[in-house]
Amino acid sequence: MSMFSLLSLLLLCFINTTINHPLDPLSPSEINQITHIVHNHYSKTSTSPSPNYTFHYVDLEEPEKHRVLQWLSSNHPTTRSTTSPLPRLAKAIIRANGATHKLVVDLTDSSLISDRVYAGHGYPPLTIKEITAALELPLKSPQFQHSILSRGLNLSQVSCIPLTTGWFGQAKTKRAVNVVCLYRGGTENIFSRPIEGITMLVDLEAMKIIKYFDRFKAPLPKVEGTRYKSSKQDFKLISDFRAKWAQPKTHGFSIDGHMVKWANWANWAFHVQFNTRAGVIISTASIFDSEQGKYRSVLYRGHASETFVPYMDPSDGWSFRAYLDIGEYGFGQSASPLEPGLDCPGNAVFLDGYATGADGKPYKIPRVICIFERYTGHAAWRHTESYIKGELIKEVRPQVNLVVRIVSTVGNYDYIEDWEFTQSGTIKVGVGLSGILQMKATSYTNIDQITEDVHGTLVADNTLAIYHDHFITYHLDLDVDGNDNSFVKYKMKTKRVTQPGSTPRKSYWTVVQETMKTEADARVQLGSEPVDLLVINPNKKTNVGNYVGYRLMHGLSATSLLADDDYPQIRAAYSKWPLWVTRYNQSERWASGFYTDQSHGDDGLAIWSQRTSGEAEVARMHGDD
Amino acid sequence: MSMFSLLSLLLLCFINTTINHPLDPLSPSEINQITHIVHNHYSKTSTSPSPNYTFHYVDLEEPEKHRVLQWLSSNHPTTRSTTSPLPRLAKAIIRANGATHKLVVDLTDSSLISDRVYAGHGYPPLTIKEITAALELPLKSPQFQHSILSRGLNLSQVSCIPLTTGWFGQAKTKRAVNVVCLYRGGTENIFSRPIEGITMLVDLEAMKIIKYFDRFKAPLPKVEGTRYKSSKQDFKLISDFRAKWAQPKTHGFSIDGHMVKWANWANWAFHVQFNTRAGVIISTASIFDSEQGKYRSVLYRGHASETFVPYMDPSDGWSFRAYLDIGEYGFGQSASPLEPGLDCPGNAVFLDGYATGADGKPYKIPRVICIFERYTGHAAWRHTESYIKGELIKEVRPQVNLVVRIVSTVGNYDYIEDWEFTQSGTIKVGVGLSGILQMKATSYTNIDQITEDVHGTLVADNTLAIYHDHFITYHLDLDVDGNDNSFVKYKMKTKRVTQPGSTPRKSYWTVVQETMKTEADARVQLGSEPVDLLVINPNKKTNVGNYVGYRLMHGLSATSLLADDDYPQIRAAYSKWPLWVTRYNQSERWASGFYTDQSHGDDGLAIWSQRTSGEAEVARMHGDD
Repeated sequence: MSMFSLLSLLLLCFINTTINHPLDPLSPSEINQITHIVHNHYSKTSTSPSPNYTFHYVDLEEPEKHRVLQWLSSNHPTTRSTTSPLPRLAKAIIRANGATHKLVVDLTDSSLISDRVYAGHGYPPLTIKEITAALELPLKSPQFQHSILSRGLNLSQVSCIPLTTGWFGQAKTKRAVNVVCLYRGGTENIFSRPIEGITMLVDLEAMKIIKYFDRFKAPLPKVEGTRYKSSKQDFKLISDFRAKWAQPKTHGFSIDGHMVKWANWANWAFHVQFNTRAGVIISTASIFDSEQGKYRSVLYRGHASETFVPYMDPSDGWSFRAYLDIGEYGFGQSASPLEPGLDCPGNAVFLDGYATGADGKPYKIPRVICIFERYTGHAAWRHTESYIKGELIKEVRPQVNLVVRIVSTVGNYDYIEDWEFTQSGTIKVGVGLSGILQMKATSYTNIDQITEDVHGTLVADNTLAIYHDHFITYHLDLDVDGNDNSFVKYKMKTKRVTQPGSTPRKSYWTVVQETMKTEADARVQLGSEPVDLLVINPNKKTNVGNYVGYRLMHGLSATSLLADDDYPQIRAAYSKWPLWVTRYNQSERWASGFYTDQSHGDDGLAIWSQRTSGEAEVARMHGDD
Repeated sequence: MSMFSLLSLLLLCFINTTINHPLDPLSPSEINQITHIVHNHYSKTSTSPSPNYTFHYVDLEEPEKHRVLQWLSSNHPTTRSTTSPLPRLAKAIIRANGATHKLVVDLTDSSLISDRVYAGHGYPPLTIKEITAALELPLKSPQFQHSILSRGLNLSQVSCIPLTTGWFGQAKTKRAVNVVCLYRGGTENIFSRPIEGITMLVDLEAMKIIKYFDRFKAPLPKVEGTRYKSSKQDFKLISDFRAKWAQPKTHGFSIDGHMVKWANWANWAFHVQFNTRAGVIISTASIFDSEQGKYRSVLYRGHASETFVPYMDPSDGWSFRAYLDIGEYGFGQSASPLEPGLDCPGNAVFLDGYATGADGKPYKIPRVICIFERYTGHAAWRHTESYIKGELIKEVRPQVNLVVRIVSTVGNYDYIEDWEFTQSGTIKVGVGLSGILQMKATSYTNIDQITEDVHGTLVADNTLAIYHDHFITYHLDLDVDGNDNSFVKYKMKTKRVTQPGSTPRKSYWTVVQETMKTEADARVQLGSEPVDLLVINPNKKTNVGNYVGYRLMHGLSATSLLADDDYPQIRAAYSKWPLWVTRYNQSERWASGFYTDQSHGDDGLAIWSQRTSGEAEVARMHGDD
């Protein structure tokens, strides 16, 4: 636990120098370097695939955790010169000649370490380039032009969207995406006007429509009542907001490279990285203990791991809609620049993010993350004391939280993801879900006409909002005051008074501690019993002997209602339990497995956690929401 | 549903005139008038009790709901003269000669309507006067002086607190309170230094100690680490806050008398009253529908109904600790002035409250309620649209909520109660729990020494924080778009696909509606099944035929773990279910019954809801938290 003890010194001494933290995201020049290494590799190797390859995912290949912790604890001014720097590795997931390659490169000496073909099920995330190309295809397709014409619609008013295909038991799959189209014709709210009945399957490697369905026609929902642009409405008050959401010009946090230090209201220090898959990753979060005079670790790493969004309409054109957005599209790749004064207050600090295009070139997403102090309007703590004679004490400590925010828009939905650090030492992870419903056109204009299960709610004339879930799962690698942690249940149990007369009471509850021994025991159906869930450090005790720990305070939880053998459920098997706690394994971060697009459910949290050997008391939380 | 249609006109025309709403709280002059009527009554009536009486509770005797609604709908400029004014009644709960009287008076003609003796179990709330007198008794008691001296303590450093006694099966009870004492001796944090072992039972009518226990001595916990005064600590940043929590000087709501109208960000209109029992009462909350051009009702009345705080230590001096704070002390009576810039932002509007002293005289609690616009830091709605070629749309609507806040400090705990009205039409009820733990002195200084169940957590040397619950229950009388409402469960049910080949899916969920027919069916264990809970108006439909309704969105819920036959549980029997929905009955507002102090559990929500006759589809929500 000395690892954070010197971090404060470091920040103090190099206050104007950017620290190269081993978890810093890839810089644009590093991305260029990776692309250069890959290009050299493929152009030199005669046995390699042709140079016709695309970059699907490029990321830091993180050093092992123990090495990062070692670096943090040793990398301070007095010993810095004697510490050998950590290697800087990166990985590139590439599609070339119909195969998925994982290449690992060393940026320190610009060398290729490995190029391995991935032969398992599932594919890397879709690229923006191929999505854009796929969405051009319908407009050029005579079949589609005919379908649009036969509906009396105008091709120039059509917008198409990509919908990942999922997997439904096929032995062989192709990289493909379903394309469906929507109609503007007077509204920017394209999701409110689906051109129902038409679905196209696009082969992403051949980049052509390989299946074309025009099954039926449904009335196009009306424009009336769909427009949301403030310029088209009486939303003058919204523009007011930008001026009004004024906070103090100063704030109490500082950012050095990717390290954030919040000294004004609390003493948090943590690392922030933009990541094209997870969106934002928080690492090495620790809090300064002024009594001990050192930083104490809380969270080694936390990020959104996966989203599962199954729709409940089994009919053609809808049955495949069960998305794993983070693995299929990427929360970071789907993030867009935040609006100062609207998405974040005027005094927020904005960070740019860098992603890699399909061509291997870096591109910038400006203002993709914002960091700000949130004046919550609640009290962090207060007390009025009126029982001291002659003295009325009133103490109020208003609450200010430090927020790290990113917004990912995946099609119709906007996920507003906040990491919120509080003065009391808690970390709150939350997602605000906004945007527009995924709607289906229908002939119905009143629910009185409906006699079948339409799998949704009639929300307007000819418009059904289809039933669906959003399961958002987090990977939380807690290191509470050090590396070895246990997962403990503090169960509240009713006791009946056994000696009548000893007390006027007949009952009370007490607390029974249970340390989880296996990963199977450590799955929890949240809210099913009166219990406090804690991650404790069994080697660290308070002055009076209690374990040092963090309590997991969850909100309402939901689990998937799909049948276990249904294909979307097989791919997101983890969604049957809201909380899993597993042993630490650096590679186990993505709840539905790393190669998520069209995955078969043979990788992921539910698979990893089936292990029976090596059950350890020292468990790590894989996370949940 | 015409009742609110003219309210907007009214507010418009009488913008500078205070409206006398039939639910306006009693004014100081009305309180004086009530006291005068009561005094005249008792001094004139020879058969009445002696004039030695005390006022325990004085409140508006509300007109019947249908008359209030009638008044609201008819009381506008054009018909005002033809509408007969509603009678203005008040009730006074008085203790006189050992009996509880309920007097009802008519303020319009200054007459007494009735004086009835309440012969049932339970007593009205304690008065501040008698609490203050009871806390003086120990300091003058030779027994207590001896106990303090024998502990080597200084009487001048002792502060005592009142703890209601509860009821433990006694056939006869006296109005009494337990007094325990705490030690300052260098700290303002009196709750951290209990003088353990001493309990005194004070007869509140005779105002003397009737039982004195000095059972054992425990070490006095140390001062070190207990002080919380900012002047004694490095809390300079807190004083910063007052300046920094600056919001725009203007706000978008107006207050006319007790009517609040929020036109800036939403179109809420509601009535706010301070109440010595409930704290704050929100009435006739409605929202302006600009399409229909009229106000539509949402909530007839909402307020905190009861708190149940049972402690889990069955030993002497602790076993009786199971408080029903609202009925025993009153949330309003326990409220204190709010600190501008700390409890509420600088631009908040503060309302004074008026309560009645034991002597019948009105007294003011300044700034007891605040109303402000909360810039939450979240989005009310946002969307980024990138699928329209050549156009990038970004729409962000930041969230501003209108908050009505009161803070009640009941001994060691501070309840920060917020009613929060949103732009999207929801009402959020929340309580922030702050203050200080109720602690018990012990000889233990490390948990390694503990081999018994100590019924709490050792939080410092010689200091146990005793296990306990806080159940906060709300009375919510919803009138969604009119007076007749139903309580409906929308249950999510898994369906298995029965025709293989019809779809690649094997399952999906759909929604089954169930309208609750009886109060027994309408009790809900929140979170136990996948269900949406709605209060709908079966007579009002949207354009496409859906019922107009509000969804009850609850957080985590907890229920009491005490045995059903334990006395505290009998008195708070409602705490076994987090949600009860009952038929409307004007008198059924207080979940543990109206006469709560030392109640026997023969009144209250669990009793009322046992009725089997007159089960009605039209139910009213009695509330929960």
